[in-house]
Amino acid sequence: MKKNIIELQKKLQTLLSAEKDNYLQGKVANYIPALASVKPDLMGIAVGTLEGKVVGAGDYQHPFSIQSISKVFGLVMAINRIGDPLWKRVRMEPSGLPFNSIIQLQAEKGIPRNPVINAGAILISDILTSNFSSSKFAFLTYIRKLARNDNIRIDNDVYLSEVKHGHLNAAFAHLMKSFDNIESEVPDVLSHYFTQCSISMSCEQLAQSLLFLANKGIDPITKETICTARDAHRVNAILSTSGMYDQSGEFAFSVGLPAKSGVGGGIIAIVPGYGVICTWSPPLNHYGNSVVGMNLIENIAEELGLSIYH
Amino acid sequence: MKKNIIELQKKLQTLLSAEKDNYLQGKVANYIPALASVKPDLMGIAVGTLEGKVVGAGDYQHPFSIQSISKVFGLVMAINRIGDPLWKRVRMEPSGLPFNSIIQLQAEKGIPRNPVINAGAILISDILTSNFSSSKFAFLTYIRKLARNDNIRIDNDVYLSEVKHGHLNAAFAHLMKSFDNIESEVPDVLSHYFTQCSISMSCEQLAQSLLFLANKGIDPITKETICTARDAHRVNAILSTSGMYDQSGEFAFSVGLPAKSGVGGGIIAIVPGYGVICTWSPPLNHYGNSVVGMNLIENIAEELGLSIYH
Amino acid sequence: MKKNIIELQKKLQTLLSAEKDNYLQGKVANYIPALASVKPDLMGIAVGTLEGKVVGAGDYQHPFSIQSISKVFGLVMAINRIGDPLWKRVRMEPSGLPFNSIIQLQAEKGIPRNPVINAGAILISDILTSNFSSSKFAFLTYIRKLARNDNIRIDNDVYLSEVKHGHLNAAFAHLMKSFDNIESEVPDVLSHYFTQCSISMSCEQLAQSLLFLANKGIDPITKETICTARDAHRVNAILSTSGMYDQSGEFAFSVGLPAKSGVGGGIIAIVPGYGVICTWSPPLNHYGNSVVGMNLIENIAEELGLSIYH
Amino acid sequence: MKKNIIELQKKLQTLLSAEKDNYLQGKVANYIPALASVKPDLMGIAVGTLEGKVVGAGDYQHPFSIQSISKVFGLVMAINRIGDPLWKRVRMEPSGLPFNSIIQLQAEKGIPRNPVINAGAILISDILTSNFSSSKFAFLTYIRKLARNDNIRIDNDVYLSEVKHGHLNAAFAHLMKSFDNIESEVPDVLSHYFTQCSISMSCEQLAQSLLFLANKGIDPITKETICTARDAHRVNAILSTSGMYDQSGEFAFSVGLPAKSGVGGGIIAIVPGYGVICTWSPPLNHYGNSVVGMNLIENIAEELGLSIYH
Repeated sequence: MKKNIIELQKKLQTLLSAEKDNYLQGKVANYIPALASVKPDLMGIAVGTLEGKVVGAGDYQHPFSIQSISKVFGLVMAINRIGDPLWKRVRMEPSGLPFNSIIQLQAEKGIPRNPVINAGAILISDILTSNFSSSKFAFLTYIRKLARNDNIRIDNDVYLSEVKHGHLNAAFAHLMKSFDNIESEVPDVLSHYFTQCSISMSCEQLAQSLLFLANKGIDPITKETICTARDAHRVNAILSTSGMYDQSGEFAFSVGLPAKSGVGGGIIAIVPGYGVICTWSPPLNHYGNSVVGMNLIENIAEELGLSIYH
Repeated sequence: MKKNIIELQKKLQTLLSAEKDNYLQGKVANYIPALASVKPDLMGIAVGTLEGKVVGAGDYQHPFSIQSISKVFGLVMAINRIGDPLWKRVRMEPSGLPFNSIIQLQAEKGIPRNPVINAGAILISDILTSNFSSSKFAFLTYIRKLARNDNIRIDNDVYLSEVKHGHLNAAFAHLMKSFDNIESEVPDVLSHYFTQCSISMSCEQLAQSLLFLANKGIDPITKETICTARDAHRVNAILSTSGMYDQSGEFAFSVGLPAKSGVGGGIIAIVPGYGVICTWSPPLNHYGNSVVGMNLIENIAEELGLSIYH
Repeated sequence: MKKNIIELQKKLQTLLSAEKDNYLQGKVANYIPALASVKPDLMGIAVGTLEGKVVGAGDYQHPFSIQSISKVFGLVMAINRIGDPLWKRVRMEPSGLPFNSIIQLQAEKGIPRNPVINAGAILISDILTSNFSSSKFAFLTYIRKLARNDNIRIDNDVYLSEVKHGHLNAAFAHLMKSFDNIESEVPDVLSHYFTQCSISMSCEQLAQSLLFLANKGIDPITKETICTARDAHRVNAILSTSGMYDQSGEFAFSVGLPAKSGVGGGIIAIVPGYGVICTWSPPLNHYGNSVVGMNLIENIAEELGLSIYH
Repeated sequence: MKKNIIELQKKLQTLLSAEKDNYLQGKVANYIPALASVKPDLMGIAVGTLEGKVVGAGDYQHPFSIQSISKVFGLVMAINRIGDPLWKRVRMEPSGLPFNSIIQLQAEKGIPRNPVINAGAILISDILTSNFSSSKFAFLTYIRKLARNDNIRIDNDVYLSEVKHGHLNAAFAHLMKSFDNIESEVPDVLSHYFTQCSISMSCEQLAQSLLFLANKGIDPITKETICTARDAHRVNAILSTSGMYDQSGEFAFSVGLPAKSGVGGGIIAIVPGYGVICTWSPPLNHYGNSVVGMNLIENIAEELGLSIYH
């Protein structure tokens, strides 16, 4: 086993080296200054396996803004808190439209297509805000526990930037409120949402914290049940059809793993029965997915034969 | 092994008996008379495994109109014929809209979202029409070979009905032609499309003929390569995100298998590494998927632990 | 002349009597309690002519919530304040969609179709908020002067209701802000918008105050220039294509006058070279236009031959 | 009176000279070769008055492809033939979308927004096809009579081009047929539609032939009733809100006349109580309206004070 780990580490290093200059093909998210200033040539990859080891290469211990990857944690928290009634307020269908589309939300009367597009994640934020006395604190505590790391923090610069530039998300929230699908006050919901998007984590921490999704809901180290096997299945299903914005189908087609990306340049991919892959490289393609991250995950999945569609 | 088969057969029988009256919850497709006249209480299920056996229960040998299930065969044929250039003319993203929506097709300039919605399958029909001297005959021959059965036929009543009521599909075809994404003449393309939709097959034949998709492209009996492993992967990926109309996400969520349904009441589900499930029961839910078929596949997938998302 | 006025008054009375029970065909706006509680059988009509007389019948001196009719005043104020640059931030095209559609606003990148749909009027509210030190006071003062009446007031119950139920309008405002087409802070803009919607006026006051639009921009009594002839023309043009929500085309077709309705049940119609008609009856048809008001204006326009399309 | 005519002729000549090089700002329609080959610097203007005189300047006697201007004649013919039931199959609302949008047509279940967008005109073509034994001949005869000229012809090159490139219109027709809003066979309807679009007329002939719309339905020379006063009103209302594609609002705003343009470069404008203006210059702006024609009509309308919104 130790030998396996050394081999995996080498493989990760080799794959990473092959991507050295490819970050130049993407563009760092610039809708907020706090993201735009990240060094574009940072890149890392970590693989966590069900034996509980996390192996990495490059800047895999460098914290970055997890952004939309936070939607995965929020979804699990909300499912655990309110259960199936959740699915009356949000669907589980792919959206077929860019991740920031308000059109569908109006046409479908304030019911978001799924919980990992922005509107859906804002709805989840409403559930957390309405069902926890201090949802932001609860969220951070939850993540720290899953990652077994109490130093995970909220990046205040990112948070303030998000609030300032968050008018499209405010539009989503008010539109859902106009359809009576938001319970709390809109500013509170948005504040929670922007907070969870502003958390910084490293590839290593993310890979660690999501192992339960590859293990039928059970943390492979502590053996604690984080969610039911059925709910782990459901989360993986949603990530498979909808986790990579309007490139989700292409990702399924060429990689074949449940995954979620964020505009901070991170991607997590779940490999049921095996573990979790997490990559980070800030420059994005025009769908909002990390260019280098997509390559890394495609290559490692192919080398190790990880796809779920074979 | 023989014991296994007897057990599977019993299980199928039990599952089928449990659905006895559930066909009453759906509604037989009535947009054409030839489909509307099918007896609503017919139902069958077949499971084909990679050992090459097909086990069934109920009306699993009764031929029915395969309708949109034909899109799977057409896609494989077209991939084999023209290869990757195919993906410049059709995408592989979920559509997020009802299967008969022309809106997206105009907004996306005549490029269908994926090859298993109507517009995409009409585009595939254009590829077949333009690349085979007699595409209808080639299609039928191809299916007969895969199913190892020369009696598979085109239902002429269905065909004539389709032509007569096919104005929405004609609108799709002309719209794509207006964007120069159809090469052949529209009436020829539609004639091919309606022909392949009008083929009748049984659950047994369908389960038999699609085993290669569960086996990395190789027919498990003859060992013949029907398509590359990569292409089998891709087809399964597309079926996973888009095969069940606007219920694809929910099907992934609750079942977790690549699948394709047709308005004739059939559903096929691919289980990579295991085999193929095919069900038939004509009454449909409002998404156009067979009510009983959905239940049967959900139940057998759960009993046998077949989901790809665990 | 005095004889003419007596005849006109009789005619108005007769037309009003004919509508006596027709209010039963509509439904009072109920999205806010303050509007829902209005007595449905109140009705009035007033006609102001360029000689400066206002003649009325029924409840024509009863104040009601002017709602969207306020958009006409706001538009004139904004044109006077910033001139042609206004037309870079809002178009003058009919919307072809229901008055509360956010879809078009996103598709057209935060540029509202015209200044008399909600999004457009919110944009106008931004211009007023950004260009007057106290835009609400300025607005009220402006209307009082035009109507020659210092008792015109803001209905505070309506205002509070609008704020509470204004989430769709907040979504519009934030969406435009996300496209950088709103300068002031969203809550300030909405506060102005809801304030101007909450003004109460009577048919008599409205007919009086808008005479300048029928007179090339000049108040027929004081001879004061309220706006240029060109701008009066432009406002009338916009009201002709877009003033009656998604029934604007039908109103042009059957009546043929520039007009604006509000969900409080009021309608104003401009008759270039003749004067202004104002009607009030709270019950609305499903487009949001007063049932009785539509009838009254159609009938008087036909009797007096007022259409601009002949 | 003779003096007036000489003055008008001079004015037209002066306005035309001022536009001499402005055709360079537009682009001749090139979707079909037969239109693309027209000389771009041809330009003409004609004004027909209710006294029955037609005055012109430039190439006002040069025949050009009337294209969408034919929709006005078709509408009047259809109204006369089937009366008010027409308005159950087509609305009279502005579309708010580009003239070739299929999106709205699907969303509104095959009921076109108005009779002067393509879908609406195809529907009118269906009415003519279904209600005349030889609708093309009837149409040509009708126009020849209105223009008092038996030499008006169908341009066969244009017709063949239209048929060949008419797939978007075919999509419209099939989509309406799929909603049962087309009675005849689609190819017959399209053949009629392309025929009427392919008629060639001069500015002089067009101005002559539409005088009845400026005169409450009555031909000012023969005193014959071409349509009722109510229907002339309705046609003018529709042209005012919808005649200039997605620039109709702007045209109302800056000119203020019922008008219809065609991609052949012609524009007709109705001046109720005065007469008809017709311009021709092939290069179009990006809305599909003639650049020079728009200028000419705006200038003459302003000089003569013709707007209906004053």
